Amino acid sequence: MQKYFISENDFESRTITGDDAFHIRKVLRMKSGDKVIVSNNSKAYLVSLTAIGDEVSFEIIEELIGNVELPVFVSIFQGYPKGDKLDDIIKHGTEYGAYDFTLTMMKRCVVKIEESKKQNKLLRYNKIAKEAAEQSNRNIVPRVVDILDLKKIDFSSYDHKILCYEEDAKAGEASNLKSIIRSLKKDDKIAVVIGPEGGIDDKELEYLKSIGFTSCALGPRILRTESALYYVLSSISYEMELK
Amino acid sequence: MQKYFISENDFESRTITGDDAFHIRKVLRMKSGDKVIVSNNSKAYLVSLTAIGDEVSFEIIEELIGNVELPVFVSIFQGYPKGDKLDDIIKHGTEYGAYDFTLTMMKRCVVKIEESKKQNKLLRYNKIAKEAAEQSNRNIVPRVVDILDLKKIDFSSYDHKILCYEEDAKAGEASNLKSIIRSLKKDDKIAVVIGPEGGIDDKELEYLKSIGFTSCALGPRILRTESALYYVLSSISYEMELK
Repeated sequence: MQKYFISENDFESRTITGDDAFHIRKVLRMKSGDKVIVSNNSKAYLVSLTAIGDEVSFEIIEELIGNVELPVFVSIFQGYPKGDKLDDIIKHGTEYGAYDFTLTMMKRCVVKIEESKKQNKLLRYNKIAKEAAEQSNRNIVPRVVDILDLKKIDFSSYDHKILCYEEDAKAGEASNLKSIIRSLKKDDKIAVVIGPEGGIDDKELEYLKSIGFTSCALGPRILRTESALYYVLSSISYEMELK
Repeated sequence: MQKYFISENDFESRTITGDDAFHIRKVLRMKSGDKVIVSNNSKAYLVSLTAIGDEVSFEIIEELIGNVELPVFVSIFQGYPKGDKLDDIIKHGTEYGAYDFTLTMMKRCVVKIEESKKQNKLLRYNKIAKEAAEQSNRNIVPRVVDILDLKKIDFSSYDHKILCYEEDAKAGEASNLKSIIRSLKKDDKIAVVIGPEGGIDDKELEYLKSIGFTSCALGPRILRTESALYYVLSSISYEMELK
């Protein structure tokens, strides 16, 4: 069933507005009496649509119980990649349960983002996250926080710090990721740093280790910057969510 | 270091030909004395280039020991998706260690492939697999076997049969995948069926269960057809390859 994340105000007045109302009216062509799921403030409700126009009104049928969120908060610090790879990273990373994304400028990033374009890019990426959260039945929408230089990020609040490092894969490292994941406790905060296409520079490696990051291989094969996050998120899900 | 998969004949005559020779000469602009990895028949060798022209000659420095292949053979039966999603599925699925891919036509596939276009498509997808295998340091190149109707596929030789099924995720199923993965033994053959965008049809579900498939949720969130395989492959790698 289609899910929409709506604001506190819209929830209070039992209306769906903006793009979501347009989606109900023009894309799904729904009628009064049709049902959707409305999510607000981490809770989800089955609702019945009562009037469909520029805005859509609804009434609540029942609150839906059932948590589909990872038991830990995984923040992805993704080295800014080339082309449109971020679209898929945010879309599928949302399906895989990421809590938020910080687009991270590192030495080997090829792309430069002008200050004036940052806000528009963040708006666009947050919209992708919202749509993916709706499709994948998340209870929260992961935030695309900011575009920041690696050195300007404050990692001090994280309980665990994972650096995905392909040189470790080549060197046969095979225990760090699993030992971190096995030590996770509910509600832990985890920072995951993934380099851009060219990888992590030696000085960045040294810096990240100095502030408490553990470099980890993601299995023995070399994953690309745009596919590395799925390995970390699946492994956490496999360990903590599957029985 | 760049890796090239070459044929038995080329390996015997210590030459690299075709697109790979072009890549060495024109893209990487390598010189005599530069080193690459050459892979043949599941073995990998560090080689030094001795002459660079339309064909490239090399001499072997040493055989490289070290297995980067999953300890089991995972065959992906991917419901044929829309657009260019298969490019990424084959590229990243190769990085994640898939053994082979069969592009599977199911009831809810939107795309129809004309018989006359199959061979060209398979050629193209096998080329993507070869390039991805080289980049991700695989010892073998996963084969894109064929484009086949689900009912025409012979699954009898597989030791384990996994059906990725999103309705199970919605219903809270959370143990089937892990219990299969925990029972895997070295060299087991595993078939993984993933539906197209519209999912698995009820009759297909019934048929697959009747021939021994276990339907499995991939965690509690709904993954898309083009991202489901990473969950299965990472989970196998996490369980069997990480310590």
